[in-house]
Amino acid sequence: MADKTQRSDVTLDTIVSLCKRRGIIFPGSDIYGGLQGTFDYGPIGAELKRNVKDAWWRAMVQDRFDIEGIDSCLLLHPSVWKASGHVENFTDPLCDSLGPSRKRYRADHIEEAECARFLVIDVTDEAAPRTLEAEIWAPTKKKAKEFFQQWWEKALGLEGRRVKLEEVEGSRTTGRFSPDDGGRLTEPRMFNLMLTTTLGPVEESSAKVYLRPETAQGIFINFDNARTTARRKLPFGIAQQGKSFRNEITPRNFIFRTREFEQMEMEFFCKPVEFCQTGERTDMEWFEYWRNERLDWFVRLGINRENLRFYDHPKEKLSHYSRGTTDIEYLYPIGWQELEGIAHRGNFDLTQHMEHSGKDLRYFDPEANTHYVPYVIEPAVGVDRTVLAFLCDAYREEEVKDRKRVVLALHKHLAPIKAAVLPLLANRPELVERAHKLAADLKRHMNAVYDDTGAIGKLYRRQDEIGTPWCITVDVESLDDQAVTIRERDSMEQRRVPIDRVVEVLRADLEAAAPAPAAQ
Amino acid sequence: MADKTQRSDVTLDTIVSLCKRRGIIFPGSDIYGGLQGTFDYGPIGAELKRNVKDAWWRAMVQDRFDIEGIDSCLLLHPSVWKASGHVENFTDPLCDSLGPSRKRYRADHIEEAECARFLVIDVTDEAAPRTLEAEIWAPTKKKAKEFFQQWWEKALGLEGRRVKLEEVEGSRTTGRFSPDDGGRLTEPRMFNLMLTTTLGPVEESSAKVYLRPETAQGIFINFDNARTTARRKLPFGIAQQGKSFRNEITPRNFIFRTREFEQMEMEFFCKPVEFCQTGERTDMEWFEYWRNERLDWFVRLGINRENLRFYDHPKEKLSHYSRGTTDIEYLYPIGWQELEGIAHRGNFDLTQHMEHSGKDLRYFDPEANTHYVPYVIEPAVGVDRTVLAFLCDAYREEEVKDRKRVVLALHKHLAPIKAAVLPLLANRPELVERAHKLAADLKRHMNAVYDDTGAIGKLYRRQDEIGTPWCITVDVESLDDQAVTIRERDSMEQRRVPIDRVVEVLRADLEAAAPAPAAQ
Repeated sequence: MADKTQRSDVTLDTIVSLCKRRGIIFPGSDIYGGLQGTFDYGPIGAELKRNVKDAWWRAMVQDRFDIEGIDSCLLLHPSVWKASGHVENFTDPLCDSLGPSRKRYRADHIEEAECARFLVIDVTDEAAPRTLEAEIWAPTKKKAKEFFQQWWEKALGLEGRRVKLEEVEGSRTTGRFSPDDGGRLTEPRMFNLMLTTTLGPVEESSAKVYLRPETAQGIFINFDNARTTARRKLPFGIAQQGKSFRNEITPRNFIFRTREFEQMEMEFFCKPVEFCQTGERTDMEWFEYWRNERLDWFVRLGINRENLRFYDHPKEKLSHYSRGTTDIEYLYPIGWQELEGIAHRGNFDLTQHMEHSGKDLRYFDPEANTHYVPYVIEPAVGVDRTVLAFLCDAYREEEVKDRKRVVLALHKHLAPIKAAVLPLLANRPELVERAHKLAADLKRHMNAVYDDTGAIGKLYRRQDEIGTPWCITVDVESLDDQAVTIRERDSMEQRRVPIDRVVEVLRADLEAAAPAPAAQ
Repeated sequence: MADKTQRSDVTLDTIVSLCKRRGIIFPGSDIYGGLQGTFDYGPIGAELKRNVKDAWWRAMVQDRFDIEGIDSCLLLHPSVWKASGHVENFTDPLCDSLGPSRKRYRADHIEEAECARFLVIDVTDEAAPRTLEAEIWAPTKKKAKEFFQQWWEKALGLEGRRVKLEEVEGSRTTGRFSPDDGGRLTEPRMFNLMLTTTLGPVEESSAKVYLRPETAQGIFINFDNARTTARRKLPFGIAQQGKSFRNEITPRNFIFRTREFEQMEMEFFCKPVEFCQTGERTDMEWFEYWRNERLDWFVRLGINRENLRFYDHPKEKLSHYSRGTTDIEYLYPIGWQELEGIAHRGNFDLTQHMEHSGKDLRYFDPEANTHYVPYVIEPAVGVDRTVLAFLCDAYREEEVKDRKRVVLALHKHLAPIKAAVLPLLANRPELVERAHKLAADLKRHMNAVYDDTGAIGKLYRRQDEIGTPWCITVDVESLDDQAVTIRERDSMEQRRVPIDRVVEVLRADLEAAAPAPAAQ
């Protein structure tokens, strides 16, 4: 089956707009005009994000026998990033426009294009036209004029003067030019993506520390402490979640690429094949295992398998130490993009930290009676792009009685609110009281809300849009039959349930929906 | 009843050592010699911290009808910190030693002391003694000699020479001098505690941003977005948890004062008294409510009431906008210290953000038919010092059969591991298999472990030290009677329970132990 290439069911704008309207995600520092590359999770989004993180923690730590969780600091000793290679290699190639915009670009994001050079000639004084020292590179004269009007006219002090642009004969060439102002681009220079800060009261170079660009290194440097206190033998993993920071030049696509983001990473330490006992998985088998298990996790939590695919990095493009890297890609509205990476990192990281710290991080294998550095398989995923994938995958527009219904068909365990209790009439104290009490009872077991701020149709619509699996209506009849109506989000089917059984029924439904643990 | 003034049951060293031994908390960047003011949570500590945060979130958000949770970025627009007053006022007074140590101190941490001035005289050439331009301030000649040997000798190039110290007559005075090298201290200068970084590819001053020193401002700037999307009327609160950073000059006392730490803060927006309807709590009544409720939260989760007390800030020391501030203090092994602060912040923060952002953040009160800026009550607590309080309060040393037993009597909902399943004999496959299956069944409902890496007494001891409420032993008899022994952590009482009822029994026990929700 060929992969789909495009989503037709949902656009990024639709998701952005839903997120803002329903309090899921807001632009960061919104009232101050925003801070590029940052986003804040609102009341509904904060719960969704918590549920995504909890589901991962449960599948990766609590449900398993072979993984420990930790929580390391975001600020680490600067030597960590020398050892990991980030100081030297965690860079992007950047180039600047020599045109008046002075815009900066990632060199690898600018495609080569065919352009010609245009001269700017001031013809206000027709008798003495003046050619300015400016060159605009553009595919057409029309485009050159646009560049001129937007950027060059003012920069060159030509406002109010008559100007013509002239293509230089023989100048047509293929190269990289600024797509904003037609300026020539400088040669690319390497720019480190780590944010830095200064720790301690004295501003010396020694006190310069980095904001971590990944959580993984916090795991490697705790390998020995965690292993010995947890009395672990190989194979076993260490997992953690937390914020990371990258000074992305072009944060874009909503929460897909941001400067502040959250990660969920796990380092699985295993035996090199030569030390494996009969029947033990080898390092490459563990790589296969994690590749499949991680994709399966998304499917267990409701992602359509057709919107997921593997991308195996070609052997020749792997780092020298890696024996394999696979991306799990998701078909976002912006196309197939990396959602998670699973990497066989060999023994690179621990070896580097041994060298730089002088500490022996080798594992003593009691069966082989020898010391060695374990191999590592790393599944690493961003929380924010996971949230975005769940949002895109759950989004539905349906026609119901000639009206559009928007539903987030989120997995019940990811849904921010599990149950909304709605009195049919907000001005009937008996209904309000019963509904309120039911919501309070439910709250002891799941995230439930009470809402009486609109007509029932409007209240349903709100809950559908944020993915609430159950709406419970307390109506006038409830006063007689001591029962309420539970409406299912996806089917819109309604069932009548005695009010004192609602907690029990929904708890059982929720428990039955729990994703199965991973095959181990 | 007079407050206790000192703990006799536990020292900080005991807790630090337990934390390192059992994988609760490690020094940050340990293998690189540490990074001052940072600590990493190990396998057990990471679960404890998660449980503390979840208990707070449950009590402050999920269990209530009047609070929304959010999750804002750590990096905010720089104007936020101008508006909040942090750029101008979030400072410590610092002074430096003019002696060779060049050490820096918080001026308010250095006490005045009586000292005399000592001159340093080189008497190697007895005929021509030479008085150096150096002055050591010390209470005694002995102390001056210590300072000299540790700091001055080398700095002054006097190694290998004969030197005498001479007290200058009439120099005895009371003042502030370096307690490390006896140097005179400079006048204090104000030093901002916020860490800064640079965002974006170009290093301009405009791109300078701060790492948040508190999570509260992320709430204020989202007040309007959260309120409108959640359709809230006053009074209601917004809560969040997350990392904050302060460039503390003297991080100390383990996780009590660190440079990277985590906070749990809630801003409760309420009506100024003149807009309250009959029966509605006034702002001062909400202040009282939160003062009591927050203390009660600690008690509900097992903290001994005698180790908690209120400290009301005197009226004359309050900020101009505050109508009251109370600290909840805990009796740490280092003495009574602030655990949580509850502050009536008036309408200061929202007013400031209105002025600096130009956005109208006033609330329209439909009953009063007018706009106004709400008042705010803020309970704010550090996760790390909360964890430390729970650890100190749960620590017990007992004599059991002439041996010392160390127990962490943590509340069941805070305990990192709920149940440990232990086969009595690790070399009997039938026992191992049953124990393993029971652990897997339990894991679906609570954090459970399987452990067969020691004799049963040793395994009990390990679990006692990390606060596991239940140890379940699968023994040879289990093969016959299909039952197992459940041992209670605190009483050490044992009960025999059919193996297929263990999950049900422990789930019920755990549910029964759930802390009650707050009175609302």
